[in-house]
Amino acid sequence: MTSTATPHQAGVRAPVWNQRRDDKARRLSAVAHLADGCVLPTSRMVEALELLLAPGDRVALEGNNQKQADFLSRSLARVDPGRIHGLHLLISSISRPEHLSLFEDGIARRVDFAFAGPQSLRVAQLLEDGKLEIGAIHTYVELYARMFIDLTPHVALVCADKADAQGNLYTGPNTEDTPTIVEATAFRQGIVIAQVNELVDALPRVDIPGSWVDFVVVADRPFAIEPLFTRDPRHITDLQVLMGMMAIRGIYERYQVTALNHGIGFDTAAIELLLPTYGASLGLKGKICRNWALNPHPTLIPAIESGWVESVHCFGSEVGMEDYIAARPDVFFVGRDGSMRSNRVLCQLAGQYGVDLFIGSTLQMDADANSSTVTLGRLTGFGGAPNMGHDPRGRRHPSPAWLSLITEDAPVVRGRKLVVQLVETYQKGGVPALVDSLDAVEVGKKSGMPIAPIMIYGDDVSHVVTEEGIAYLYKAQGQEERRAALAAVAGVTPIGQRADAARTRGLRERGIVAYPEDLGVSPLQAKRSLLAARSIEDLVTWSGGLYRPPARFRSW
Amino acid sequence: MTSTATPHQAGVRAPVWNQRRDDKARRLSAVAHLADGCVLPTSRMVEALELLLAPGDRVALEGNNQKQADFLSRSLARVDPGRIHGLHLLISSISRPEHLSLFEDGIARRVDFAFAGPQSLRVAQLLEDGKLEIGAIHTYVELYARMFIDLTPHVALVCADKADAQGNLYTGPNTEDTPTIVEATAFRQGIVIAQVNELVDALPRVDIPGSWVDFVVVADRPFAIEPLFTRDPRHITDLQVLMGMMAIRGIYERYQVTALNHGIGFDTAAIELLLPTYGASLGLKGKICRNWALNPHPTLIPAIESGWVESVHCFGSEVGMEDYIAARPDVFFVGRDGSMRSNRVLCQLAGQYGVDLFIGSTLQMDADANSSTVTLGRLTGFGGAPNMGHDPRGRRHPSPAWLSLITEDAPVVRGRKLVVQLVETYQKGGVPALVDSLDAVEVGKKSGMPIAPIMIYGDDVSHVVTEEGIAYLYKAQGQEERRAALAAVAGVTPIGQRADAARTRGLRERGIVAYPEDLGVSPLQAKRSLLAARSIEDLVTWSGGLYRPPARFRSW
Repeated sequence: MTSTATPHQAGVRAPVWNQRRDDKARRLSAVAHLADGCVLPTSRMVEALELLLAPGDRVALEGNNQKQADFLSRSLARVDPGRIHGLHLLISSISRPEHLSLFEDGIARRVDFAFAGPQSLRVAQLLEDGKLEIGAIHTYVELYARMFIDLTPHVALVCADKADAQGNLYTGPNTEDTPTIVEATAFRQGIVIAQVNELVDALPRVDIPGSWVDFVVVADRPFAIEPLFTRDPRHITDLQVLMGMMAIRGIYERYQVTALNHGIGFDTAAIELLLPTYGASLGLKGKICRNWALNPHPTLIPAIESGWVESVHCFGSEVGMEDYIAARPDVFFVGRDGSMRSNRVLCQLAGQYGVDLFIGSTLQMDADANSSTVTLGRLTGFGGAPNMGHDPRGRRHPSPAWLSLITEDAPVVRGRKLVVQLVETYQKGGVPALVDSLDAVEVGKKSGMPIAPIMIYGDDVSHVVTEEGIAYLYKAQGQEERRAALAAVAGVTPIGQRADAARTRGLRERGIVAYPEDLGVSPLQAKRSLLAARSIEDLVTWSGGLYRPPARFRSW
Repeated sequence: MTSTATPHQAGVRAPVWNQRRDDKARRLSAVAHLADGCVLPTSRMVEALELLLAPGDRVALEGNNQKQADFLSRSLARVDPGRIHGLHLLISSISRPEHLSLFEDGIARRVDFAFAGPQSLRVAQLLEDGKLEIGAIHTYVELYARMFIDLTPHVALVCADKADAQGNLYTGPNTEDTPTIVEATAFRQGIVIAQVNELVDALPRVDIPGSWVDFVVVADRPFAIEPLFTRDPRHITDLQVLMGMMAIRGIYERYQVTALNHGIGFDTAAIELLLPTYGASLGLKGKICRNWALNPHPTLIPAIESGWVESVHCFGSEVGMEDYIAARPDVFFVGRDGSMRSNRVLCQLAGQYGVDLFIGSTLQMDADANSSTVTLGRLTGFGGAPNMGHDPRGRRHPSPAWLSLITEDAPVVRGRKLVVQLVETYQKGGVPALVDSLDAVEVGKKSGMPIAPIMIYGDDVSHVVTEEGIAYLYKAQGQEERRAALAAVAGVTPIGQRADAARTRGLRERGIVAYPEDLGVSPLQAKRSLLAARSIEDLVTWSGGLYRPPARFRSW
């Protein structure tokens, strides 16, 4: 035996190794009088939370991109701050007003999050008032990753569609983040509470086993959900059609991109709607855009109906797409019950390691192609885009598209993901989108962030598409030539005015910059009439009536 | 309505959207006479596979790092190649002889895999003989990622510990890859067959819901499992102790690394065993190495028992560690039944996005710090190391360690993961480990691979530790200086002989190279006696008898 004394040898009193389990047992027994098996009564949820939570707890509150555990967040906002205070909130998306009331009332103190779209102004204000501390701003999967490392929740407040009396959960199409949050919590002696719309005898399928769930509670009303991925084709402009045509011609066709992810926006919606028309005229059907990591964008319906799409794996679902998805089980991932199974973590994994191209829009880009959607006064966070919009250096398997970006002739090389940024040179209101310094740099400084909140870093970007043309940045040699390539497609913005005509000619000759005519794309042809659908109504027709858009999108 | 005719308008016959579901129903009905509910009889498994499979199917065969669906793979090897042939195998680890018999007999033709350790010579041979086609060699998570994109399995053959009559599965501590493979298959109308050791009335917990599983079959013997992560401290050398001391002093302490992943090897085992002794003497307990993404290495026991470790999330389990893990629920992720829940995908996610440091050993490194464990004549694959051993450019949340690697003063910067490579300058037998050209380059060429199979790319490596010292590569300016820094710690290898004494002095002054004396590490102190455990028996003692090493590791 070693000379180093072990605790057992040294007669030291054995440390306690089951504090978490004992603590959980204590909390569970405190609410035993309220619960019927694993079912908590709706009317006494505030009381139950006061018994199940302790001050300072790390609480994972399911507030996804779309699906919100809003009954639980509203209940949490009603607990007595004298009893429950200083919580550390882990939340994907700060999107509901009561999320921030928690901080105003002192119930919560610290937050780790990924996105704060609608509430980003209030986040900044609370931070300034010293009512809210930010642990860090993450991407979605980073936040989940840390739940298995140093941010394991004491309590998870999640939501599902249905539960049975054993606590088995059915999420239906919006599976999203729920299994991951529950796994991190349940297997480290945390308490899992799920709000459900309905308690039933037999579930259509089980998405999360009851042995991972401590309590279910029927919500006072169905969980909140937002149609974040619906873009009305009516708002797609001719300029976006032009950029879409260039992307198809100069990128999708050129690299034969079969597996891909689209960001959300009108630019990418235009591409989706050009596949069955412009894409088909180029003979590309079956050659590109077969396998997707993507939310069920309604604008993808015409491409699916035209037989372009082999598969779509989804982060989450989309309101109104349920029946359409259920009727297309060869394309979407669905369960025995016929409804979709989405999974944010697995779709992010697929999007990072399984596809060759990410394409997304940005509102602002600097001369080095760094970009951010952050604007002054708002702490919007990152969401999921950075996990798609970077070159995954852990990837090892080759594909033709990935290999085709190798520019160096050396014994040790690697391929590269196509990371494409779409940007119109001017935003609405005549504000240049290509700028010397991103607003994000100023926001980062003002908010005391250690580094600026960059959405997509320029060194990860392989291509930039503007209405002027495409900059093939990955081909440029050195930072200075990269800048010249970007300037060549930056129009009359301050960045674009630095372009030198002779140099641009040279870049076009070397294929580092391409204008529409270099790609065989006619701007005259770039009209909305080229879109396979020009309204939500068109999409409904394409779907054979299966797509049922939410009321706000119905205008006919 | 748009002028573009939709299929519905044009009166085109509606395409079929449920081929997969119909095909599955047909196959299931073909075995209905064999099955009792979802249970297939052990004795008729070969016949069942002949009815459930079709030529050319993509078949995911669970052959993990450790856990093997060996009853199913042995049954598959016995099907009639006249009926079932040309299968496309998706398999994490080609590790059992029958995996390759499938190719010899023509049952399988194509393979996508991640690792082929023990069988790598035969893989190369079958490839040469034209009996086997390689789709691609992946890392583990890439292979799973593609299961949601373009490699969705038609059939998954997986393994679990126990099942009930409803097909619910209990994996026990070796959950590993099973949930991910099953999810990809079940939700795209594939057929999921699980071999189990036992059929029981009530499961200790449910790891995979029965509504994702089509059939269970009791295996003829318990599934095979290998203790791949056990390193006998007896084989740790004084040199490895020295390197471990330098890593702790010059890296862990300097950057205050709290969340990390260790590769498998004697070098990292040495570090684990130095924490309670050398680490404690530096006052580092509680300051470093608190949260781990790691398999349950037995050599971590002394650090856990000494109170260093807050949490460990695991890719898989390790033979003999079951009772120890169950007795340490505050540290490990365990279910209500008390046994571990591991999950390779989630641990890889945690290791990529949730920790600050990866450290691993390599056998060969070139002048640019590229490294590979591939040796001539073997196609070993990648396993999981590249997913840990790269700088994850999709990461956005800051941590002190990650931020501390920023060297540039610019408005747009980002932090960096600590990717540390441990390499002794000479391998056993006097072969230099630091070389001009990696064997992997030659292997890649000979096997017709499009690029060389590099395990860790040099541009991702932040630090190299040899017995000579540490090269802080991330601080070097330009490729040439990086090479000089690496040469300075490369000893008398051909690479090391290029080091220039004056230049090395300058690099040491600038903190780009550190020798033991620069770090305050005394080589005289670097003795095996400094290890908290020097044998497997010591580890058992540390564990209070809870760790039960497999027979092959018992020598007392």
